[in-house]
Amino acid sequence: MSSTPATQVRLKAYPTGVVGPDTWTVTHDAPAAPGPNQVLLQLQMLSVDPGMRGWITPKRSYMPPVQPGEVMRAFGVGTVLESQAKAFVPGDVVTGFTGVQTVGVVDAMFLRKVDLSLAPASSYLSGLGMTGYTAYFGLLDVGKPKPGQTVVVSAAAGAVGSMVCQIAKIQGCRVVGIAGGPDKTAYLRDVLGVEAVIDYKADGLDQALKAAAPGGVDLYFDNVGGAVLDSVLMQIKRHGRVVLCGGVSQYADAQQVRGPANYLQLIAQSGTMQGFTMMDYMHRVPEAVAQILEWQAAGKLQFREHILHGIASFPQAFDMIFSGANQGKLLIDLQG
Amino acid sequence: MSSTPATQVRLKAYPTGVVGPDTWTVTHDAPAAPGPNQVLLQLQMLSVDPGMRGWITPKRSYMPPVQPGEVMRAFGVGTVLESQAKAFVPGDVVTGFTGVQTVGVVDAMFLRKVDLSLAPASSYLSGLGMTGYTAYFGLLDVGKPKPGQTVVVSAAAGAVGSMVCQIAKIQGCRVVGIAGGPDKTAYLRDVLGVEAVIDYKADGLDQALKAAAPGGVDLYFDNVGGAVLDSVLMQIKRHGRVVLCGGVSQYADAQQVRGPANYLQLIAQSGTMQGFTMMDYMHRVPEAVAQILEWQAAGKLQFREHILHGIASFPQAFDMIFSGANQGKLLIDLQG
Repeated sequence: MSSTPATQVRLKAYPTGVVGPDTWTVTHDAPAAPGPNQVLLQLQMLSVDPGMRGWITPKRSYMPPVQPGEVMRAFGVGTVLESQAKAFVPGDVVTGFTGVQTVGVVDAMFLRKVDLSLAPASSYLSGLGMTGYTAYFGLLDVGKPKPGQTVVVSAAAGAVGSMVCQIAKIQGCRVVGIAGGPDKTAYLRDVLGVEAVIDYKADGLDQALKAAAPGGVDLYFDNVGGAVLDSVLMQIKRHGRVVLCGGVSQYADAQQVRGPANYLQLIAQSGTMQGFTMMDYMHRVPEAVAQILEWQAAGKLQFREHILHGIASFPQAFDMIFSGANQGKLLIDLQG
Repeated sequence: MSSTPATQVRLKAYPTGVVGPDTWTVTHDAPAAPGPNQVLLQLQMLSVDPGMRGWITPKRSYMPPVQPGEVMRAFGVGTVLESQAKAFVPGDVVTGFTGVQTVGVVDAMFLRKVDLSLAPASSYLSGLGMTGYTAYFGLLDVGKPKPGQTVVVSAAAGAVGSMVCQIAKIQGCRVVGIAGGPDKTAYLRDVLGVEAVIDYKADGLDQALKAAAPGGVDLYFDNVGGAVLDSVLMQIKRHGRVVLCGGVSQYADAQQVRGPANYLQLIAQSGTMQGFTMMDYMHRVPEAVAQILEWQAAGKLQFREHILHGIASFPQAFDMIFSGANQGKLLIDLQG
């Protein structure tokens, strides 16, 4: 057990509009003993994800919202200290829903073992975690790209987006990456080698998109919604597809979401817009892990991680996700 | 040839916002002689359709917009008076793009023969025309309903909607029809026998939809967009589907379209929103005609038609489509 006191970040109240410091409260409660089918975990690494915005919104979604007073929901990696669950013994390293805490009791049904000799803890929250699976199944299974097609990716330098760009290139697609600012566009162009890059903060989006995809867009992997989604819809090709992975530009205020005004292009172009969550694909995770590891070993796929340090950085990390300040998968190292 | 002079309704100028009398101009030009691959037609019946709004909007769509000064585009049925096309001889009755005119020269490539001994001219513009094919392929091929599923239809008492309701019932679905006003809801309940009816003008839409579809919506056939689309999205079931057939509530002003603010429910529920136009299905029209005739003969499917008289009624007919004043497929009889 760590000598520092246990720390939890809890949801104080559902935010209205922008998430501020009033959203969170930090506590130092000593963890209880684990009950049946629970384990006590020492956390090593936490994942900070755009989906967290939905988890603190009291509205119908794919899982119930976090209740005020509860430890904030998060994916993490940790070591089992005590176990009342058959599947785990002390010393096991596990990943799953751990919550934003340094030490805590967690339901074992939300955990699975990982092997740190195969990959570091951070990888199990980035390329070998939900981020990687989301990119893999969202692009390949929902998007169904074909070699030679033009694939546009928004938040392309982000956690999911950067993996989508690389997997699309592996499929033989022509990739157009949309991101904000020179650092992100340079990464897309110089490191990932995507065929065309658009800086949505600097370039006129509509014109830049026409220039980058003169024949139109076969497949759009949307992480952002808003103006970018509307712009791409105007360039969607006949029978084009939009994969809805996220709408981070619209998460700030669930009462004021801007729907895609150009959605009628889906009629004119016989297009499809399809959403998904990883709940549909959990049974196929081993397939994704095996393929991602193979591509990584072959040098075709890299995980981009942006690591902060210490649980106190959580509120800042949450803000970074929505301001776009992070460069790759945002993680918090609790031991560094 | 008719003794009355030829009459054409032409597009005067692209409307901005609401379509008013300044949109149209009526001319009485004597028709030219047909050129190669053209025919001279005496028109009997015209079809008035929501899609016309898109044809007079200078924006990318599935076909080029009508140019100011041109005869307004429309489907019609007419008799060949003179032919310079191999496929047709004088006396043939044909349907296709005829334009809003009493007599005129038409390209033969947009026409096909019909048999008035099999069905009246009006049927070839309603249940045996684009209206019927749109309902047939949109529901069955795009929507893919399964027996027992809950299918919601908007503009359910309209031309396409009333056919969708009936075909969904033939498929063994539970049908919820949304329409405006007591006449339309009575028609849905008493004549078509749909399982639940919502009057969007009188009932609180969200509450009425929850009551009518307590288990959620498997399939939504959307003719209207706007508030109805948003309301249904909040009730869409996991892996639910939205078929985008039209967005008549949003056609008034192409610059001010309201996108579906609840589109992120497609992520939460792993849902799909798919548009289509009949261009995808023209090669399968014989299949639809045969099946629709069979259902009609068996008493399972009726065509609802609302027939106005005389070409001068076109501007009023156009307005009726968007105010919802018509009861079924809106047609103009040019001979009555």
